[in-house]
Amino acid sequence: MTDRTNLLKSGERIDDLQRNGLKIIQDPGRFCFGMDAVLLSGFASAGIRQGMRVLDLGTGTGIIPLLLSAKTQAESLCGLEIQADSADMARRSVAMNHLEDRISVIQGDIKEADKLFAAASFDVVTSNPPYMIGQHGLTNPEAPKAIARHEVLCTFEDIAAQTARLLAPGGSFYLVHRPFRLAELIVTLSKYKLEPKRMQLVYPYADREPNMVLLQAVRGGKPRMTVEKPLVIYKEPGVYTEEIYGIYGY
Amino acid sequence: MTDRTNLLKSGERIDDLQRNGLKIIQDPGRFCFGMDAVLLSGFASAGIRQGMRVLDLGTGTGIIPLLLSAKTQAESLCGLEIQADSADMARRSVAMNHLEDRISVIQGDIKEADKLFAAASFDVVTSNPPYMIGQHGLTNPEAPKAIARHEVLCTFEDIAAQTARLLAPGGSFYLVHRPFRLAELIVTLSKYKLEPKRMQLVYPYADREPNMVLLQAVRGGKPRMTVEKPLVIYKEPGVYTEEIYGIYGY
Repeated sequence: MTDRTNLLKSGERIDDLQRNGLKIIQDPGRFCFGMDAVLLSGFASAGIRQGMRVLDLGTGTGIIPLLLSAKTQAESLCGLEIQADSADMARRSVAMNHLEDRISVIQGDIKEADKLFAAASFDVVTSNPPYMIGQHGLTNPEAPKAIARHEVLCTFEDIAAQTARLLAPGGSFYLVHRPFRLAELIVTLSKYKLEPKRMQLVYPYADREPNMVLLQAVRGGKPRMTVEKPLVIYKEPGVYTEEIYGIYGY
Repeated sequence: MTDRTNLLKSGERIDDLQRNGLKIIQDPGRFCFGMDAVLLSGFASAGIRQGMRVLDLGTGTGIIPLLLSAKTQAESLCGLEIQADSADMARRSVAMNHLEDRISVIQGDIKEADKLFAAASFDVVTSNPPYMIGQHGLTNPEAPKAIARHEVLCTFEDIAAQTARLLAPGGSFYLVHRPFRLAELIVTLSKYKLEPKRMQLVYPYADREPNMVLLQAVRGGKPRMTVEKPLVIYKEPGVYTEEIYGIYGY
C-alpha cells in the first residue's frame, strides 16, 4: 500500500472520481476540474479505440487522461501542462492510481508542443482550454485560475495550429468550450483543416440557453457534420438527468 | 371584392396562413412551403423593426414576405425568385392579400442580385435556400422542387456573397438550413464578413438530433454569438409544443 498522505502538499486534497476507484489530487485554492472536463471525457471516449495514442493539451491536474484511462482502451495518454505545480499534482495522481505505464505528464508550453512531440504522432487530441478571451477583467493574470480560465498564455488558434501538426491524418480533436465562441471555433478549426464533424450543445435545463459546446473535428475530414441531440444537465434543481449520471458513472 | 377564382391557374390552390387573414397560392405539384419558412419568419421577425427594408432571396411563392408583412412593421418586403411560375404565384398572392404597397416580387437570379438592387440597400436579408449540395441523386434537375431543394442554380456561397453586398453595414441576414452544413455555413458567412451572432437549433423531439438550424449573421459584427435555448417541435407525436403554436400564431 502506498502511503497516500505523503503524496499531498499543503492545501491539497484527494477527490474520488467515482469510476474504477480512481482518485485525483486537487488544490481548491488553485483550480478544481469542473463538469466540462467530465463531459469532454464522455464525448471523446466514444471515439477512442484500443491502442490509440491520446494527447491532452492543457491537462491541468490530469483529470482528462485519468478519466479516459478508465473509460477507454487507449494505449497511451499524455497530458501537457505549462504550470509546474499543476503538472506535479497530475504526476502524483498518476502515481497514486498506479497508472504510470499508461499516463505521462509533460510540463511545457502548448505553443511549443510541436517541439516536444513528433508530427502526426497522436490519434486523438483533447482539450478543455481557457474559455475567456485575453486578460479582460483580470486583476492577477499570473494566478493559476486565471491561466486555466483566460487566454493568458495561449489562444484557441495556438491550440488548433498545434493540434493540426500533432494529429495523424484522420485523427480526431475533441474539445469543450463556451457557445458564445462557437463561430470563431469553427472558423479557426477549418482554417487548420480540422473539419468539425460532430457537435453537442450542453443545456443546464431543457428550456435554457446552452452553456457548453462539445466539438469533434477530424484532421482532413470532409465537410458534413452531425449535431447530436441536446445534452441536458438538470432534470430539476439539484437532480441530474439520467444521461449525466451515465457520464459520471454512478 | 376580388374574384379569387380568377387568381388561380390549373393545379393551384389557396391556403390560409392562419394569421391576419393572410392567404397564399400554392401548387402542390411544384413546391409547397414547409415549417422551415414559418420558423425562419418567426426567428427573423424579432429583429425587424418599423421602417426596415427587407429582401428575401429565393422567395418561391412569397411565403416569407407574406408572413413578415403580418409579423413585423417592415416598410418594404421584396422577394427575389428565379422561377417565373413561382414569382407569378407570389405576385398573385400579394395582390390577393392587397399587399402591393408593402411587398414586391422580382423575377431574377440570386447570383446577379447586385445588378438588380443597389449596394447596401437593405436592412435585413432573409433566405430559406436549397439545402442539398449540387445535383447529387437528382433525376430531373430542372424540376421546380429540385431547384428549391438542391443547389442547382446557386450555392450557399453565392447567397452569402450577394447578401454581403446588399446588406447595409450592421444589417442582419437570417437564414434556415440543415445542421449537417453548419460548419460550412459559419465559415462561408465569416468569409463574407457576415458574423454569426445568433443561432437556434430546431429539434423534432427533445431527445432527437436537430433537423434545422436558424442563424442570424450581422454584416461587420464582432465575434460573439448567442446560442438560444432549443426549439422543440413536437411535445408528442402530432402535438406541437406551445412555442410552435406561438410561432404559427394559433
